[in-house]
Amino acid sequence: MSADPRLPKGFSFSAGVAGIKASGKPDLAFAECAPGTTGAALFTRNQVVAAPLLMGKRYLKLAAGKVQAVIVNSGNANCATGSQGLRACEAVCRSVAMLLKIPSDQVFPSSTGIIGVPLPTDRIMSALPQLIAAREASERAAKSFAEAIMTTDTKAKVASAQIKIAGKGVSLFGVAKGAGMIHPNMATMLGYIFTDVKASPPRLKTMLKAAADESFNCISIDGDMSTNDTLLLLASAGSGVQLGDRNAERAFKSALLEVCQSLAEQIVADGEGVTHVVRLSIEGARTHGEARRIGEAIARSALVKTALAGADPNWGRILAAIGSGTVRVDPGCISIFFGRQQVCKNGAAACFDEPSAHDYLSQAAYDVRVIVGIGRAKLQFLTCDLTSDYVHINADYST
Amino acid sequence: MSADPRLPKGFSFSAGVAGIKASGKPDLAFAECAPGTTGAALFTRNQVVAAPLLMGKRYLKLAAGKVQAVIVNSGNANCATGSQGLRACEAVCRSVAMLLKIPSDQVFPSSTGIIGVPLPTDRIMSALPQLIAAREASERAAKSFAEAIMTTDTKAKVASAQIKIAGKGVSLFGVAKGAGMIHPNMATMLGYIFTDVKASPPRLKTMLKAAADESFNCISIDGDMSTNDTLLLLASAGSGVQLGDRNAERAFKSALLEVCQSLAEQIVADGEGVTHVVRLSIEGARTHGEARRIGEAIARSALVKTALAGADPNWGRILAAIGSGTVRVDPGCISIFFGRQQVCKNGAAACFDEPSAHDYLSQAAYDVRVIVGIGRAKLQFLTCDLTSDYVHINADYST
Repeated sequence: MSADPRLPKGFSFSAGVAGIKASGKPDLAFAECAPGTTGAALFTRNQVVAAPLLMGKRYLKLAAGKVQAVIVNSGNANCATGSQGLRACEAVCRSVAMLLKIPSDQVFPSSTGIIGVPLPTDRIMSALPQLIAAREASERAAKSFAEAIMTTDTKAKVASAQIKIAGKGVSLFGVAKGAGMIHPNMATMLGYIFTDVKASPPRLKTMLKAAADESFNCISIDGDMSTNDTLLLLASAGSGVQLGDRNAERAFKSALLEVCQSLAEQIVADGEGVTHVVRLSIEGARTHGEARRIGEAIARSALVKTALAGADPNWGRILAAIGSGTVRVDPGCISIFFGRQQVCKNGAAACFDEPSAHDYLSQAAYDVRVIVGIGRAKLQFLTCDLTSDYVHINADYST
Repeated sequence: MSADPRLPKGFSFSAGVAGIKASGKPDLAFAECAPGTTGAALFTRNQVVAAPLLMGKRYLKLAAGKVQAVIVNSGNANCATGSQGLRACEAVCRSVAMLLKIPSDQVFPSSTGIIGVPLPTDRIMSALPQLIAAREASERAAKSFAEAIMTTDTKAKVASAQIKIAGKGVSLFGVAKGAGMIHPNMATMLGYIFTDVKASPPRLKTMLKAAADESFNCISIDGDMSTNDTLLLLASAGSGVQLGDRNAERAFKSALLEVCQSLAEQIVADGEGVTHVVRLSIEGARTHGEARRIGEAIARSALVKTALAGADPNWGRILAAIGSGTVRVDPGCISIFFGRQQVCKNGAAACFDEPSAHDYLSQAAYDVRVIVGIGRAKLQFLTCDLTSDYVHINADYST
């Protein structure tokens, strides 16, 4: 089906305009998957869950993980829309299914955008025939899918990987959107990873969960958790490679992690109003889980994030954020580095050059290392600054 | 000692300039308490704790709750300053004690300002003789105390109450500072409440805790928890009234709560960059504690707070913030009101007039009611919007 070497076999893509976004930009994305494609998905842990997530979960179960189409709209989250929202989502899936002559429960739906506004199903349904007819197994078409799922993103997010397993080529191609509401357990994040390996839904789920834990669940933009987060992994079997032995699986997992990490990094770099991407390394924690909670406490602090916006080497706010968290620490054991420069030693000021620390923090991306000093666990966490642009973007969203 | 009817008997106040603040504004506040004055204090739950909090706690214990002087500096938190910070705090207390000829452990110290910078003790110590000599039992002097503890506050915060117990007049006079880092379990909040009732330190502590739980622990500006939060209640016995029978205690408790709530409201209204004060009412929660956690989840959400900055009736973000919290809810039971206008009914949009909701949210202070719909507990929570001014204030703090 695909002639493009970077694209996995068995998928074609298209994008369209239903007029949900006031801007008139593309707001519908579609992917067709070869019959027999298996899928697994991770969803938000928010208790307020959008209709398409409920439907997607239900369909994956009904169809035993078989997926033949993905339909996404941007501009409207179809969340907090009650039973009407569920019926709207169902109607869209049914239309896609009829046009493709496949069962409804093999259509996987997503929505992203404003919460609490009824989904304009009429507009979506009228745009579907042209959307589906336009599908193509090309990188250009896959990129148009990535563009059509954007909300406040300024750039489309795409990542791919190619590996050889038993002499055969396997491809992975991922697209994502992010921008705001980004915090562990995903965020208004939609991600779709297409691959042509052959694997059962439960195996896909296990691998996807492991990859998400070291990528999408290690990023935080504004500490908010979305109602619509969805990460879907689809495997078409088009490469003829079945994941079986340990080496093959290891190679695939590492490629999957690479794609997920690249997408996660792109999401943070394109975070709403972000001017600095911070690679936060938490070291010397008691456990991996505690390292994550320390990273979250730092990434959540408005005082830390505004200091970073001003390239202000105010390490005391980082220390205070760690202390306010739920992980028991010994402040007297904590050290903090901005790049190679140590700014805090055993909980107190290290002797450092403030102007050069300010210069270091003025870069677009940089490293902050926190050594907790109570164990051996470590974790990489990606976060960003909080700027007045973030406020402007989010203060003017729906009115 | 006091001729001013609003001031409790047994206290005198002064303020001075030590040159800690670059602005040259007052940065030292002093209060003398009549011999025999008892005190109780609440401190931050942050694990990173400033030196004066450690010393204050130790002294209160050593002196069995007796306090004869309060010394506060603003502009420097004396936090993350290691053992040097403890010695600096001790030296300041010792100087005050020598000048007043009282034991060191009856001096209660506080600091607020930047973290991680050594306290300039020389400057403080040279300013002490003049500071102490200037003390006066006047409301003017008490107000100068309130001004000298300010950091990014734009207004001094003062509240008072007078009650009659058994025919005798009892006064309460409170001062506080806030501005940023405000979240339950206090925040960079210093509060001092002076009263002329007679009560034992344990009784003072119990009453102070109860009052703080319904005032300072129900406000959130930016979700950050400070390293220096301190709330001190001092009782001079100067009124000749001993708290004994239930009625007297009830009257006192209610006056104390009134003073604490007034100070808490003033703190939120003067929050960094705040343009809207939101009286958040959480109703129909399972328990009081769960109502508080729901309030916190809403007050912590950057997306909610930026919507409020734009007077945007984006109730979906409030719903999403509730759902992302740790309290188990049923989204289908949640209703939200902006003033009298219902915007969300059973987890979905209510039919409401957007322009008039926008007008309502454009006011300086307004009510948001959340009905969780799963129980009978309710709680009032005070919060505010997140503006680009907040970002500017905090991005340019130390550099």
